[in-house]
Amino acid sequence: MNVLFSGRLVTELKEQLKNNFPKVNFTFTENISEAKKYAKDADVLATYGGELDHEVIEIATNLKWVMVLSAGVDPLPTDLINERNILVTNVRGIHKTSMSEYAISMLLQVVRKEKEQIQLEKDKEWGKRKLKVDEITGKTMLVLGTGAIGQEVARLAKAFRMITYGVSRSGRDVEFFDKCFKISALEQILPKADYVVGVLPSTKETKQLFTYEHFQLMKNDAIFLNMGRGDLVTSEDVIKAVRNDEIAHAILDVFEEEPLPKDHPLWTEKHVTVTPHISGVSPYYEQRAIKIFQHNLEVFLTKKGEYVNKVDMNRGY
Amino acid sequence: MNVLFSGRLVTELKEQLKNNFPKVNFTFTENISEAKKYAKDADVLATYGGELDHEVIEIATNLKWVMVLSAGVDPLPTDLINERNILVTNVRGIHKTSMSEYAISMLLQVVRKEKEQIQLEKDKEWGKRKLKVDEITGKTMLVLGTGAIGQEVARLAKAFRMITYGVSRSGRDVEFFDKCFKISALEQILPKADYVVGVLPSTKETKQLFTYEHFQLMKNDAIFLNMGRGDLVTSEDVIKAVRNDEIAHAILDVFEEEPLPKDHPLWTEKHVTVTPHISGVSPYYEQRAIKIFQHNLEVFLTKKGEYVNKVDMNRGY
Repeated sequence: MNVLFSGRLVTELKEQLKNNFPKVNFTFTENISEAKKYAKDADVLATYGGELDHEVIEIATNLKWVMVLSAGVDPLPTDLINERNILVTNVRGIHKTSMSEYAISMLLQVVRKEKEQIQLEKDKEWGKRKLKVDEITGKTMLVLGTGAIGQEVARLAKAFRMITYGVSRSGRDVEFFDKCFKISALEQILPKADYVVGVLPSTKETKQLFTYEHFQLMKNDAIFLNMGRGDLVTSEDVIKAVRNDEIAHAILDVFEEEPLPKDHPLWTEKHVTVTPHISGVSPYYEQRAIKIFQHNLEVFLTKKGEYVNKVDMNRGY
Repeated sequence: MNVLFSGRLVTELKEQLKNNFPKVNFTFTENISEAKKYAKDADVLATYGGELDHEVIEIATNLKWVMVLSAGVDPLPTDLINERNILVTNVRGIHKTSMSEYAISMLLQVVRKEKEQIQLEKDKEWGKRKLKVDEITGKTMLVLGTGAIGQEVARLAKAFRMITYGVSRSGRDVEFFDKCFKISALEQILPKADYVVGVLPSTKETKQLFTYEHFQLMKNDAIFLNMGRGDLVTSEDVIKAVRNDEIAHAILDVFEEEPLPKDHPLWTEKHVTVTPHISGVSPYYEQRAIKIFQHNLEVFLTKKGEYVNKVDMNRGY
């Protein structure tokens, strides 16, 4: 049984895998072009996903399972995966801790005027009453996407005594949301939100789902935060929305083009905060990913138990 | 029945008081020197406390109750208050929402390297992997002071799945703390904490309670945050602690001298974050304070019910 790894992994976790699965033959490679050399014999491919292409799947004629060590499976060749009935699992939910911390901390940063406060500190200026800080407690948050990440954001929002609404494809009720809605009800619920947090995956339905008209429906002092996928909304619409005071601030961690080009107007837009796709970054990422992988590898080998995070390639998540 | 106000209050709340208590004669003044003119006839003095002195209490021979619209009663003339058996109440707990948001947001700011991130944004630098961010989730927090504010900090810390320890004079168990200790056990519990959050009031016992030796007992990667009183610790000890890597960072909102002088070394100390005593600042402060005042005024007038936040002047809180 051959497991092929594409992408960096700390030595400690490599050793852990080998010790826990002594009968499995692990091949660790640094990137997908190196991995291709070993793809022919691979039963399992564990990959960060970003560089995946048709070719490696075509070469890997024995491939039965792709473990994507990230949340997004959109780079995977869906047709080929479906045609050959290859199992796909990912580590969705693994990002929930860092992403929910990101969302809360960035909302606090904007609401508490921390950028301005840091500038005052640099200038050695006491300026106690200079900044009008607000609180996030008691506000209303609308989360676009009620999966593991959205739910964790809502859980923390609840700790700050917020009213929490969720929007998802199914609209089904999810814990920590006061109420959930189908995407078709987005227009009705948007005017109630102080904060709109986007954690939707990239699917056909969510691409440019959010438009300028949606910003117009929002409160003028609302904050929009997107940490799901960059193609949820165009940067033109975001810029237009903040310039026309349709919303007070936009916090963007994901973009249509990444890295965001040096000359992109978003960098210098006053009421936009740009972060470099860091919401999911965590020093505990690899150990959490490998924990999920080990669980699924156990299921794969023994045919007992349930896979965690099986992906339906037709839905895209 | 004469109620004398010293300190600003928005017109809306003045009107609200007059409407809710039509038989009470309210005198609203801007500051304590203006208030002194009316002090002789005052039964009740409502004040922000900062400017209070012996003189106004001496003039106010009818005074039965001082409502302090802040948490600190240390500027009050204790002997005089006790001698004349004047009731003192304050608005402790009112700061709990903004102060707990402050604590969580500042810890997130440091742990997530937000100062550095904001600089990268200014430089239009993507630099995704440049900063080693950590998470606050799952860490251990020690709160010095387990009153309303400390408890609210612990409640939020619990939402971030932290282990929470509290230290107080009594050491009695308080909700949202995994365990509480007497101040005498501080040395034993300090080595366990990732974050030490000071919200102790200023009393004889807490003045310079925290010393360089305490920082030495802390983890080298721990963060110290003080938003209680500036005299808990000397700035010399804080500076020595961060320079000698006894702790990783100090977040200070309160100081021995406020405003912090322009030439104070804390301003430029790399691993110290200075904020201008803003943790308790909230746009909802006045309405929350007046809500408590109205409750107590009702008790005062009807002699029915219990005063909220009665102060024991001998204890100092």
